[in-house]
Amino acid sequence: MKVLAFLGSTRKNGNSEYLAKKIVEGTDHTIVYLSDKHIQPIVDMRHTEEGFSPVNDDYEELVKLMEEHDVLLFATPLYWYGMSGPMKNYFDRWSQYLRDQRFNFKEELAKKKAYVVITGGSSAKITGLPLVQQFQFIFEFVNMEFADYIIGAGVKPGEIVNDKAALDKAESWNKQFR
Amino acid sequence: MKVLAFLGSTRKNGNSEYLAKKIVEGTDHTIVYLSDKHIQPIVDMRHTEEGFSPVNDDYEELVKLMEEHDVLLFATPLYWYGMSGPMKNYFDRWSQYLRDQRFNFKEELAKKKAYVVITGGSSAKITGLPLVQQFQFIFEFVNMEFADYIIGAGVKPGEIVNDKAALDKAESWNKQFR
Amino acid sequence: MKVLAFLGSTRKNGNSEYLAKKIVEGTDHTIVYLSDKHIQPIVDMRHTEEGFSPVNDDYEELVKLMEEHDVLLFATPLYWYGMSGPMKNYFDRWSQYLRDQRFNFKEELAKKKAYVVITGGSSAKITGLPLVQQFQFIFEFVNMEFADYIIGAGVKPGEIVNDKAALDKAESWNKQFR
Amino acid sequence: MKVLAFLGSTRKNGNSEYLAKKIVEGTDHTIVYLSDKHIQPIVDMRHTEEGFSPVNDDYEELVKLMEEHDVLLFATPLYWYGMSGPMKNYFDRWSQYLRDQRFNFKEELAKKKAYVVITGGSSAKITGLPLVQQFQFIFEFVNMEFADYIIGAGVKPGEIVNDKAALDKAESWNKQFR
Repeated sequence: MKVLAFLGSTRKNGNSEYLAKKIVEGTDHTIVYLSDKHIQPIVDMRHTEEGFSPVNDDYEELVKLMEEHDVLLFATPLYWYGMSGPMKNYFDRWSQYLRDQRFNFKEELAKKKAYVVITGGSSAKITGLPLVQQFQFIFEFVNMEFADYIIGAGVKPGEIVNDKAALDKAESWNKQFR
Repeated sequence: MKVLAFLGSTRKNGNSEYLAKKIVEGTDHTIVYLSDKHIQPIVDMRHTEEGFSPVNDDYEELVKLMEEHDVLLFATPLYWYGMSGPMKNYFDRWSQYLRDQRFNFKEELAKKKAYVVITGGSSAKITGLPLVQQFQFIFEFVNMEFADYIIGAGVKPGEIVNDKAALDKAESWNKQFR
Repeated sequence: MKVLAFLGSTRKNGNSEYLAKKIVEGTDHTIVYLSDKHIQPIVDMRHTEEGFSPVNDDYEELVKLMEEHDVLLFATPLYWYGMSGPMKNYFDRWSQYLRDQRFNFKEELAKKKAYVVITGGSSAKITGLPLVQQFQFIFEFVNMEFADYIIGAGVKPGEIVNDKAALDKAESWNKQFR
Repeated sequence: MKVLAFLGSTRKNGNSEYLAKKIVEGTDHTIVYLSDKHIQPIVDMRHTEEGFSPVNDDYEELVKLMEEHDVLLFATPLYWYGMSGPMKNYFDRWSQYLRDQRFNFKEELAKKKAYVVITGGSSAKITGLPLVQQFQFIFEFVNMEFADYIIGAGVKPGEIVNDKAALDKAESWNKQFR
């Protein structure tokens, strides 16, 4: 099983990254730091005659990576009770590639299994729930299985090591992915 | 009452923009097209010694506009069951300005009243609810009153004119703002 | 179109009842005050050999009423951020009748259109959202169309007359049902 | 720490009961099977001159039990995406006792810590989220700390033993309560 981890954080070595790395450790995997990639916001051309125009950024590379992996792991800190802006811009562009005849993007997505990691303060186990629901709607739309999610407690870098339940779950996912 | 409308859409003349314009018509207002502004994603420096660095983009202009208005109207199409990426990047940067000693950003935000417009397909009245809940958490965090929200039905440009309940509510907000 | 209104309130002449009556006024309809009916809580026998036992209460009368109507209107005050206890006991018993060979209960439910009225304090437009989501899951389970919902503001009897948006929506449903 | 476990299920030896018993094993605790208690639905008299009338059922016994314990554990199967009817009737009656001068019910509740166990099918980790949000609003209203929740996977009696994450969390709560 090949795991593709999308990291949404805008800092390095944070808590969501820590969990993501525990999850993929020793597996066949690729890690993408979304904030290091050049990803343009969507320009919504769904209802224009000309349709979407090709965009000169790093996105097609990500589409190809998705095709090549079986599991998509989305790891984001809870920023203002949602996924990070860079991760949101990444998802918004799905709308473009679902319509791009060069890819079978929707069919490809439907074959993947999705896992979600959210980190935030101790209240994130409640305030992160709308984000879990949003992910559910996203995956449902493309018929992707939403296998499971972790909401971990960690704000300052490193705090996540105290959230035993989150670490246990990360470890159990890791075993499945090996 | 001065109304500041933040438009999250990445196309012009869409349904969320239509509602927003109905709402502010004839009032003392300013409209900001977020996708026309240069807004960098947050770089999370909350837990570093040096803290946040100044960013050379259009954001400070938006902070000043917020200070000068009484009502903040957030209008976004439902993109992947959330606010648009450009609007998310706008909110993420609040974290920086809450810590910027040059502004009393948190105190200023607590004086405002927030209104939200979301547009999407006919199912958005359900699938848009996690986004409403996210807005609620955002406004609660800064003690801003979440006055009301509209979830309007419109996907193709212009479709919103058939959603009488949304138009009625837009009109009633407009009367309050005049 | 025949409308069956289930009222969940445990007081008479409250705000949810007021809205429900506006909605069905002049239509071919039946009103059921759930708290006046004798409805036993479910006894969960799904995984026993003997299965469910017949219950000697008013429930079968409600099953027959549902068969005879096209629209199901569920009107409940927000009690502790959920539907009222009597309405919950009503829904719990669906589990029994879905398995009762004498009725085609699931097929019947799939033909109906569901409308929901929730009333509560001014914050109910936010705190009532988990209940809207619960109704969505309920109706989805039985393939019933969830046509629309109203969250009205009214706590003391009569207060609802000040919620113009709720009254407008009630009136527009009424027109569809006539 | 004295733990009071309210069981909402309407069958004996189900999955939510199993988890609840793991959680309280070896602690100073009391278990209440809500479906064995005689609990009348609330009769909403909040806005009448006479107010609430005394009800001749088992409820005052529960009020006294709550006063005597430090931790309240609410364990319910997910029935139609909510708590069970008997548990809902139990909560609805809080409205009466918050107004009963013989008790300091609200002050008492504010001293407790709340834990929630929900069991359902494998999708309950998503479809149970509105119920978690409802509990959050309930506890927030009475200033009770919502310490944590478990959403366990188990439909047929006994299935819960396969949900390792739920059992691990139950065990870790148990350690805190000993």
